[in-house]
Amino acid sequence: MQETLKRHITEIIPLTEDEFAFVAAHFSVQNFKKREYLIRQGKNVPYTYFVVSGLLKLIYNDESGKEHILSFAMEDWWETDFLAFYSGTKATMSLQCLEDTCVLCISLEDYEKLCSGLPKMEHFFLKKATSGHIASQQRIFSLLSSNARDRYNQLLKRYPSLFQRVPKTLIASYLGVSRETLSRLSS
Amino acid sequence: MQETLKRHITEIIPLTEDEFAFVAAHFSVQNFKKREYLIRQGKNVPYTYFVVSGLLKLIYNDESGKEHILSFAMEDWWETDFLAFYSGTKATMSLQCLEDTCVLCISLEDYEKLCSGLPKMEHFFLKKATSGHIASQQRIFSLLSSNARDRYNQLLKRYPSLFQRVPKTLIASYLGVSRETLSRLSS
Repeated sequence: MQETLKRHITEIIPLTEDEFAFVAAHFSVQNFKKREYLIRQGKNVPYTYFVVSGLLKLIYNDESGKEHILSFAMEDWWETDFLAFYSGTKATMSLQCLEDTCVLCISLEDYEKLCSGLPKMEHFFLKKATSGHIASQQRIFSLLSSNARDRYNQLLKRYPSLFQRVPKTLIASYLGVSRETLSRLSS
Repeated sequence: MQETLKRHITEIIPLTEDEFAFVAAHFSVQNFKKREYLIRQGKNVPYTYFVVSGLLKLIYNDESGKEHILSFAMEDWWETDFLAFYSGTKATMSLQCLEDTCVLCISLEDYEKLCSGLPKMEHFFLKKATSGHIASQQRIFSLLSSNARDRYNQLLKRYPSLFQRVPKTLIASYLGVSRETLSRLSS
């Protein structure tokens, strides 16, 4: 799984063997079973997660217990409750496995050590943070858009494999449409 | 207005006079009147904007012409249609002045030159992209949350000055509540 991280980073910046060994030393491996939680609402958020394999959902349970899906995260995606991670506050959202999942975790302290010890990693993380910001802005756009077909087509175009891997009820929940509307859109 | 940018950047990274002169050379000043557009849906997005003074709204007009507010942007905020700016595609949203506004603009080419010519600017932009990503994730959270009082209190806590500067109808639109509900929340 270190190889997955190496490929992922070297798509953006070149790394020598020694540099990659330095990078890898800041991450630890964790494995989770389907339905296990990486982050729980109300708890601390010690890590940002890089998904090596598997699939996660970032969710928010409201007071009535209803689940809202902020985003999915699969291979090569970085995910956490970013506010809680960076500010040290409690999680306002949960991160849960939809499949057995293997992640590489990095703590805030290790993230800062990594960036100061190897400044070109800031170029890499800048690209990733920018992609994350774009994805979030597009998600806001999609939530505000009243056209369910546009939202469906946008998701299908960006993440075609989601439709094979995620139960239809969750896709419907993510899109904010009923299971019946989703069937109509996908037919 | 260069001083505003200098203060804003040096809150995060130190800059010599020469370094700041190099930074400043990558930006141009633009002034807009209230109601003018910086970005229009369907058009190119040549710049990311740093707000020196004034107030903007990032909006999306759906097929029926209804306006949806993605975010507000005021002093010290960086705003654009990030997907269109980075990928060179047409804007899917518009950026419009709510007050007379002065911005510093940077093109993608100048942004890349600035980062490669002065790599510590990547540390600065990483902090900003992270803040933007956090703000977007919080906005998604807020859009999914069914509790209007929580959304209202979150906005009031994060951006207290918005309530003095933005018409109540726009605050209501941003929060996805009626003008009457907003009056009840703010009383």
